[in-house]
Amino acid sequence: KLQGLTKDSPMRLRMEEFVKRMQQEVTAGLEKVDGEAKFKIDRWTRAEGGDGISMVLQDGKVFEKAGVAVSVVYGMLPPAAAQMRAQHPDIAETNEALTFFATGISCVIHPHNPNAPTVHFNYRYFELGHDEKGEPISWWFGGGSDLTPTILYEEDAAHFHKMIKETCDQHDPRYYKDFKKWCDDYFYIQHRGERRGIGGIFFDDLDDKPIDELFSFVKDCGNGFLKQYVPIVERRKDMPFTMEDKQWQQLRRGRYVEFNLVYDRGTKFGLLTPGSRIESIMMSMPLTARWEYMHEPDVGAHGKLMEVLRVPRDWAET
Amino acid sequence: KLQGLTKDSPMRLRMEEFVKRMQQEVTAGLEKVDGEAKFKIDRWTRAEGGDGISMVLQDGKVFEKAGVAVSVVYGMLPPAAAQMRAQHPDIAETNEALTFFATGISCVIHPHNPNAPTVHFNYRYFELGHDEKGEPISWWFGGGSDLTPTILYEEDAAHFHKMIKETCDQHDPRYYKDFKKWCDDYFYIQHRGERRGIGGIFFDDLDDKPIDELFSFVKDCGNGFLKQYVPIVERRKDMPFTMEDKQWQQLRRGRYVEFNLVYDRGTKFGLLTPGSRIESIMMSMPLTARWEYMHEPDVGAHGKLMEVLRVPRDWAET
Repeated sequence: KLQGLTKDSPMRLRMEEFVKRMQQEVTAGLEKVDGEAKFKIDRWTRAEGGDGISMVLQDGKVFEKAGVAVSVVYGMLPPAAAQMRAQHPDIAETNEALTFFATGISCVIHPHNPNAPTVHFNYRYFELGHDEKGEPISWWFGGGSDLTPTILYEEDAAHFHKMIKETCDQHDPRYYKDFKKWCDDYFYIQHRGERRGIGGIFFDDLDDKPIDELFSFVKDCGNGFLKQYVPIVERRKDMPFTMEDKQWQQLRRGRYVEFNLVYDRGTKFGLLTPGSRIESIMMSMPLTARWEYMHEPDVGAHGKLMEVLRVPRDWAET
Repeated sequence: KLQGLTKDSPMRLRMEEFVKRMQQEVTAGLEKVDGEAKFKIDRWTRAEGGDGISMVLQDGKVFEKAGVAVSVVYGMLPPAAAQMRAQHPDIAETNEALTFFATGISCVIHPHNPNAPTVHFNYRYFELGHDEKGEPISWWFGGGSDLTPTILYEEDAAHFHKMIKETCDQHDPRYYKDFKKWCDDYFYIQHRGERRGIGGIFFDDLDDKPIDELFSFVKDCGNGFLKQYVPIVERRKDMPFTMEDKQWQQLRRGRYVEFNLVYDRGTKFGLLTPGSRIESIMMSMPLTARWEYMHEPDVGAHGKLMEVLRVPRDWAET
């Protein structure tokens, strides 16, 4: 149904076409890195409206768990799930359900080797409320890409941020700075006083330029992903590590779980949206995680990571 | 400071004395079962007001992780944390912080052997809002005890429920029935369509009888704990198990984490209360947990558990 799209096709179709193509490219790129395991493909439909494709690679040679999911969901949004409405003054305050449309791609990759970082990205297009012609009353883009190392390699953090900054700078000189800060703020685990990882960019509610310009920015971000991440995982995937490194990775995975279940807006939205596919939402979870009472990180490599999780650095400047 | 308490002492002191004594008795009982490991004791104070004692046994012979914590916290409660206010009409709607006092004991025990169930209990006394004499404007008790098996043994579930029912029946003929249902409703993981475990009792906002009567009920519940749980763990702790059982246990621990971080009122309250001790809140987490994409439980023993998590049973009747 996505054939024959043009620049004049509705954005919901153009974005759907983009995320589905990106899913193919990213999973192909990751299978090449893993060298052994293949993504399992699940197609699903949502009774209330919509469908999706979840692709998961589990227990591969390089990747412990990697999930890349696309979805197109639409219908009526219950008030509880319409938390994002506050940012969209076009939508009057209401306690009634609103029509919505959402399409996006999300990806979380957890490698086995604790030297290789976890990475996450997500790009989405949203419409909330529609007029009698079916035109959206409000629409916006959101997304981002962020890195979660177990062991900090400054060159990896710098590479990741520089690649992202390059893309941002082609679209707006303020984007990298603003969205880098947004990312540091968003992935903050308040009850721990630390961030989930070393950041990247995060943006939401993006609607302040012509829709084609914003779409072009989102596409460039998404298309840049493999270049952001693959060089890092390639140089870390076969490095030696200690039992302490592995255990530290498991504890950091516990923090990842804490962030996702307690704070993440996407997860909350998913859990509150009737009929959403729980396996796709929980795909972002690590295969294994650990919680140790009163664990103190080593002062060495593990302590170095904690420093930059507590006080974010300007990685693109290094 | 808790010496010389009488029946006329303020409830906050009497409850504090009770939970601290109960902590000693429960940890002594569990150390006896473990036979090897001892509880590590941490005493802490809260800058904003209060203190507590966390006792954790980690990586023992029988227990993977067992935590028993008592706390006494008081001061001003921010509006976000005062969610329980809705149940207490004495407290007028307000956006201002309220004075509060809370003391309680909570316990989570995760054994190694997948045949031995995880158990949790919590008993607490709360005051919200105080008049100029320091008397509480509203007060209530809450608590409960519930069992989370990895592999279902019907005799264990029946024993656990029957012991609890016996205690309840001594205080009010409606308690067991009402609080058993409350427990089944409370520990519901909505996004999974299943309960965390096979229940027990749960109650909150208990203030509809003279305070001494309610205190007596709470004490009997707490004092009954070792009899509810120890016979079960004694007969399961050395049973043989398969790798599949262990993996199934890890997946069920993942669900335990999901419940605690997404739904549990106590955890939410802790995370929202300024200056609360995060290690004590996260003490309830299992040492390890697992999330597998699209896992299907076996039709045998694991499937039997899923049935009773989806449709609760009247265990005290069996």
